[in-house]
Amino acid sequence: MDDSVARRTRQGGRGGNARRASGFQLEQRPWRVPRNTDRPVEPVDEAGVQAIHAGAMRILSDIGIEFLNDEALTILRDAGCRVDGQNVRMDADFVMEMVGRAPASFTITPRNPARQVTIGDGYMAFVNVSSPPNAWDLVRGKRPGDFATFREFMMLTQAFNCIHIAGGYPVEPIDIHPSVRHLDCLYEKLTLTDKVCHAYSLGRERVEDVMDMVRIAGGLSHAEFEAAPRMYTNINSVSPLKHDFPMIDGALRLARRGQPVIVTPFTLAGAMAPVTMAGAVALSIAEGLAAVALLQYAAPGCPVGIGTFTSNVDMRSGAPAFGTPEYMRATQITGQLARFYGLPLRSSGVCTANVPDGQAMWETSNSLWAAVQSGSNMVYHAAGWLEGGLIASPEKFVMDCELLQMIERYMEPDLVATDPESIAFDAVRDVGAGGHFFGCAHTQARYATAFYDPLVSDWRNYEAWAQAGAVETPERAHRIYRGIVDTFEAPPMDPAIREELQAFVARRKEEGGAPTDF
Amino acid sequence: MDDSVARRTRQGGRGGNARRASGFQLEQRPWRVPRNTDRPVEPVDEAGVQAIHAGAMRILSDIGIEFLNDEALTILRDAGCRVDGQNVRMDADFVMEMVGRAPASFTITPRNPARQVTIGDGYMAFVNVSSPPNAWDLVRGKRPGDFATFREFMMLTQAFNCIHIAGGYPVEPIDIHPSVRHLDCLYEKLTLTDKVCHAYSLGRERVEDVMDMVRIAGGLSHAEFEAAPRMYTNINSVSPLKHDFPMIDGALRLARRGQPVIVTPFTLAGAMAPVTMAGAVALSIAEGLAAVALLQYAAPGCPVGIGTFTSNVDMRSGAPAFGTPEYMRATQITGQLARFYGLPLRSSGVCTANVPDGQAMWETSNSLWAAVQSGSNMVYHAAGWLEGGLIASPEKFVMDCELLQMIERYMEPDLVATDPESIAFDAVRDVGAGGHFFGCAHTQARYATAFYDPLVSDWRNYEAWAQAGAVETPERAHRIYRGIVDTFEAPPMDPAIREELQAFVARRKEEGGAPTDF
Repeated sequence: MDDSVARRTRQGGRGGNARRASGFQLEQRPWRVPRNTDRPVEPVDEAGVQAIHAGAMRILSDIGIEFLNDEALTILRDAGCRVDGQNVRMDADFVMEMVGRAPASFTITPRNPARQVTIGDGYMAFVNVSSPPNAWDLVRGKRPGDFATFREFMMLTQAFNCIHIAGGYPVEPIDIHPSVRHLDCLYEKLTLTDKVCHAYSLGRERVEDVMDMVRIAGGLSHAEFEAAPRMYTNINSVSPLKHDFPMIDGALRLARRGQPVIVTPFTLAGAMAPVTMAGAVALSIAEGLAAVALLQYAAPGCPVGIGTFTSNVDMRSGAPAFGTPEYMRATQITGQLARFYGLPLRSSGVCTANVPDGQAMWETSNSLWAAVQSGSNMVYHAAGWLEGGLIASPEKFVMDCELLQMIERYMEPDLVATDPESIAFDAVRDVGAGGHFFGCAHTQARYATAFYDPLVSDWRNYEAWAQAGAVETPERAHRIYRGIVDTFEAPPMDPAIREELQAFVARRKEEGGAPTDF
Repeated sequence: MDDSVARRTRQGGRGGNARRASGFQLEQRPWRVPRNTDRPVEPVDEAGVQAIHAGAMRILSDIGIEFLNDEALTILRDAGCRVDGQNVRMDADFVMEMVGRAPASFTITPRNPARQVTIGDGYMAFVNVSSPPNAWDLVRGKRPGDFATFREFMMLTQAFNCIHIAGGYPVEPIDIHPSVRHLDCLYEKLTLTDKVCHAYSLGRERVEDVMDMVRIAGGLSHAEFEAAPRMYTNINSVSPLKHDFPMIDGALRLARRGQPVIVTPFTLAGAMAPVTMAGAVALSIAEGLAAVALLQYAAPGCPVGIGTFTSNVDMRSGAPAFGTPEYMRATQITGQLARFYGLPLRSSGVCTANVPDGQAMWETSNSLWAAVQSGSNMVYHAAGWLEGGLIASPEKFVMDCELLQMIERYMEPDLVATDPESIAFDAVRDVGAGGHFFGCAHTQARYATAFYDPLVSDWRNYEAWAQAGAVETPERAHRIYRGIVDTFEAPPMDPAIREELQAFVARRKEEGGAPTDF
């Protein structure tokens, strides 16, 4: 965090200081939520989609899902579902009627309206890494998450235009007591960033506090807050076949106030789900739609999305593996089902690797391309994730942002234009055999914007790269991370709003924050 | 090459020795040329394909292509093309008639018929890295290619089942005189591997020698050799708008003996081609089809394919950049044109990075997924390429093979099966809420083959990985590379055939080999 840290990086000293002395400048692409123009990859045919759908419906009607939440049981009983203890069975007709109430897309407006994000409608929004307990960086290695590191990740989240949403906590700040952690974290998130925010569904007080803080940060009345999506939550089922109390409680609270809920079962094939991909997806869809049906009955038309977190386990260790062929296919198939139901899809940018090396990048690349191929509308953990989600890394964050920027560029229509000027017949004729295009007018008119300009990639040849210190990718990323954190300026906020937020946090701390059961 | 080298690796000593002591075993997937089941990504619409096609035809008819080869000029004049000096203009009707003569796919049979490879028909064949002048490895760093290193790469090419074709020289062995280099290299290639071989089109003698050696290695008569594809060549145009003498000469020699020719223009947008992707692809297609038309007129129905090597340059340095969004889109668009013409497509697994770090892998991953998305039938440089093709690296070779294996697994139909057993309703019911799938019969019947088993990835958690030495990906790859080379056994070859090959090489060396003009 201080300058001495940057100087301790392996080869980073001189370059790092020079950069800071001359004022660090993050050269990146402008803010833009990319729109996915690719036809999705569809590994199963129409009959396959129907078979998975039928499997999910049969799970819902014949096996049922356990809701460990009395309010949900009451609602679903009222809706005509068959409730037996905590087990709820629902018929396909009811589920599909409820699913039909959900909007195909929705727009979330954070305190800075310029950072509005549409979930659905072909858009692809990227979310920072969320929820690892630990951090790892090149200088400090692996260590438990703390509040200072949490703040650093918020700065990275704000600094990169290709990160559209400030999701969950990038690291769990264990130096803040759990009863007030959400207050401190949200205060930092709402002041260090101006992007769409997330609330953990971890108990009534936390959810209500976060909604109040987002409302205050946006300068909104309660009515204004509830009139349109301003934030969201993501809930996970307890696979197989279970939804627990706090997740459903939080989801209901948000849905009733018009705030979006993403339902993401964590169906690891071979562990919490069948070993076959179609089976794991069918279970994931059943669990996801059970929650969607509940929310649509309780708050008709509320914005929802389904998430996929289906992957395989390493059969040697039982640990989850990410970015595998199995993960890619499960994500693509879930995309087919999401389109079948007309719901936005969330997937992730995930890997199993422990450090930001080659393995980390091929695994992350696999999962990010699966996000593209599945038509995912929201990509969690899109930057910064390591060790199957147990580590958040700032270097990995920067490296992943290169991939995200490339996906953004990949989606731009000018890249694939075929108008006569793009076909460039005249330029080919004018340059002629053996000529060179760099100097020609056609190139000169376009060269500044024709090609993707890299963020952390080094495109020099080996000798130039070696002469400059042979700095490998994680170290280059480390310098960018330090540059961002060392020169960070928070986005503007009305002082009155800041004071109101501070007062809210102070009051809620005095009240004891949220109850903790540990 | 000797054991002491392996012991010098950073953390490799103990693990390396243990592995060797207990006998190195390469755990990998079986030989299989994957069949691409994904619908290709098509960035331009029907009208866009027509526009690029029309642009290419207009280049061919109005600007013309230079053939620096008198025989080609004579053939094309005879075919009715307008020949003016070395410039040849051909009408769309003629080009399309010639293109129509080419088969949509063809099968190449090397000396081991079990290593037969079909090019086209949805198959995706992976070729080793070809033609870098230099090698780089973790122990020795960057150094010029030599014969011993060439042999090592041949061993890797043979050892990995996911490498289907032994393409060009993985490194240029500069310690062998150019006049006899092809003789020594092909002898090694034909004895260390039993896979499909390539001939450089670098002058009459070299091409004829390689055809003779492949014929001898296969135990074939001249008639048998010419009856079906046994090897192939890849030629490049001299973009823009030029085909040089030796490439066309070699292509004609192979085509007339029924051996396949891949035509791959090297159209770097902003340098040798228009800065716009559609323009660069149109030029590439024009150059490619000009050679295809020549070959189909000279040898009707001969097996051909078109290659794409369209990428952008780094506008700061003018150096080529690979694995970029521009590269991906150009590859996908060229795939659309290849399908329009009914020709097999070759693309590549390429990157700009200098060492096998994260950047190398996201760039390579981008290009390999573009190969999938474009419906490429042959993927050059699929393993081992660095520094924009100036370096071949054994560690990168091993790392890339992980990606190739994952693509193979990704293509397997069982992964996306939706039959009732895959939907697994009964398993979900039997395991029930809160249960675990690992022990259930449905999992136990499938767990050994259900999931991709990694080659060089480490899927252990951070602590287990750290305790085992915190070995990062390139070092793990280095150990596998050493294991393969240190324990390599050449595939069997009839001693009589080996003697005949040796005699051929000896005789041709006595005759002076091939003329060199430098």
